[in-house]
Amino acid sequence: MADLNSKVIAIDGMGGDSAPEAVLSGLAEFAVSGFHFIIFGNKKIIDKHAHLLGDNVSYEIRHADVMVTPDMGVTSALRTGKNSSMGMAIQAVKSGEAAAVVSSGNTGLYMALAKIILKTIPGIDRPAIASTIPSKHGSIICLDLGANAECEVKNLVDFAIMGEALAISVLNRKDIKLALLNIGSEDVKGNRLVKKTSEILKKLFENYVGFVEGDYIFAGNSDVIVTDGFTGNVSLKTMEGTANYVVSELKNALSSTLISKIGALLAMPALNSLKKKVDPRLYNGAILLGLNGIVVKSHGGADAIGFSNAVKFTANILRNNIFDRIGEQLEKSKLHYVSEYFGKQ
Amino acid sequence: MADLNSKVIAIDGMGGDSAPEAVLSGLAEFAVSGFHFIIFGNKKIIDKHAHLLGDNVSYEIRHADVMVTPDMGVTSALRTGKNSSMGMAIQAVKSGEAAAVVSSGNTGLYMALAKIILKTIPGIDRPAIASTIPSKHGSIICLDLGANAECEVKNLVDFAIMGEALAISVLNRKDIKLALLNIGSEDVKGNRLVKKTSEILKKLFENYVGFVEGDYIFAGNSDVIVTDGFTGNVSLKTMEGTANYVVSELKNALSSTLISKIGALLAMPALNSLKKKVDPRLYNGAILLGLNGIVVKSHGGADAIGFSNAVKFTANILRNNIFDRIGEQLEKSKLHYVSEYFGKQ
Repeated sequence: MADLNSKVIAIDGMGGDSAPEAVLSGLAEFAVSGFHFIIFGNKKIIDKHAHLLGDNVSYEIRHADVMVTPDMGVTSALRTGKNSSMGMAIQAVKSGEAAAVVSSGNTGLYMALAKIILKTIPGIDRPAIASTIPSKHGSIICLDLGANAECEVKNLVDFAIMGEALAISVLNRKDIKLALLNIGSEDVKGNRLVKKTSEILKKLFENYVGFVEGDYIFAGNSDVIVTDGFTGNVSLKTMEGTANYVVSELKNALSSTLISKIGALLAMPALNSLKKKVDPRLYNGAILLGLNGIVVKSHGGADAIGFSNAVKFTANILRNNIFDRIGEQLEKSKLHYVSEYFGKQ
Repeated sequence: MADLNSKVIAIDGMGGDSAPEAVLSGLAEFAVSGFHFIIFGNKKIIDKHAHLLGDNVSYEIRHADVMVTPDMGVTSALRTGKNSSMGMAIQAVKSGEAAAVVSSGNTGLYMALAKIILKTIPGIDRPAIASTIPSKHGSIICLDLGANAECEVKNLVDFAIMGEALAISVLNRKDIKLALLNIGSEDVKGNRLVKKTSEILKKLFENYVGFVEGDYIFAGNSDVIVTDGFTGNVSLKTMEGTANYVVSELKNALSSTLISKIGALLAMPALNSLKKKVDPRLYNGAILLGLNGIVVKSHGGADAIGFSNAVKFTANILRNNIFDRIGEQLEKSKLHYVSEYFGKQ
């Protein structure tokens, strides 16, 4: 059982393409003392693979009869979802038994269940998915990465407020620069949504630097990039696809001649450090911001390394009390102003 | 003066960040016989830099008093724009004097002027920007890359029709696979726009393969990827930014130690071939599809190499009579069905 001083994290043992193997191996890979895991899932299946956890993980298994699957749809998933491994893991946060929950399961269902069970922070209508992204000047925060395919101005303004709070906590500094993703940097560019949002952000934030384009994300001149969930998700996945493409073309090029192979061999440590820098598994872990609890989403295709990084991301949030800081920041921030601006919801 | 057998291309000599130098040097870089260029711009300025054209370019200069600039806004640009280098170059296509026009000038103004001067093809409400993009299985076509920040279902369906026609011409084969960019591959994913569009594409195209996500663009399993101009532009620029980031991190990594430097030296030809493959300048050149004329947009930041590739792209379209083929394809295609579906415009 858990050491009373341990931080407790609820784990959806059945979520993701390679569950439970990737989940259990991921916990073994993480294996940092001071954390205890409650693993929810089909006890028979989890037990069968429990050897993957090794000897250094403090854990317990809780049986869940139901498993939510993407093809069952949100409606029926919600009907049975509370008894699923995913739903029970979220409820462990609600009850206070766990300080956070991690799942590689379907994003839509996860978001829907988390919203129903934990509810949103007062003043926030829609949670957003936020994650760190590498840039030339260190990590930046990007949101929404796919929770809301359809957004209103109010949502984007909320995302800016939450993103700023997260950035202050995660990037550990105060001079956060906020930007809005657009298809040009001039005021006249873009669709109605970003134009209107930009007008409001100008009034609310002194540290709002305006529009940025897709090719400036990696420049790292802004710390928080706000966008709707459709654009954010396409952009994030385009990053992954492009990085994979360039790296695979690099491999092809380096193995094309004997001399280039020798060159690659000599440059191997350098190439490995590059690989590490652009490996999306190392950036795995996104927080569903705006809920009354720490809900972390791991990539559905995450392997053990990927899952361990999502747990590391969660541990970091817990260690730094980031969630409380976000709460304070939201309290201090412009929520009041915003609800005046948009009228009471 | 022009050889009567030459293909004539109208050039906006003043468009782009590095005009007219990049434009003129780009034409010299292209220097393929059988083409004649009418360069529109301030005669004094163009003359001053005419030495950049070298001895192998067949050209003439036409004076334009006015220059359109992004900061003058679409309204005032349209008022004076017809007498600008950009407007006059487009008019040369309208009058039949030139077979195509190329400009690195502001996209919004270029699109607006081209639409006013050349008009759209019957049945098409909004032109789209289409370009080839590299993938693991050769080039693919992507549109809209930024002409329409706000799209209706009818627009996306038009883009699919035009994209298919362009792909048959440019990729030079018949078995074109059409896909719609989305944030998931299941039917339930995405916003109203893509869900509704997908329903219609299913009815219209046997070769419609459904939704693709951002990370699948480079997989090359689809030949035409359709999206609205906001998402398309963000995705395209994210590609550029990511490729630049990975290549710059590769450079940093390779120059980090003496041994990695030696390795990089041995692998130099391989690295150069990679650089060439991901160099956005080599993919410069996008066509404004849906207009009664061949209108090619070069990147605003294009240098000589970039501009020469936009001209090469244009030359290719002219050589293969691609524009006529698009016309035929549109004629044969589902336009009739579409106007029935949406009602007469």
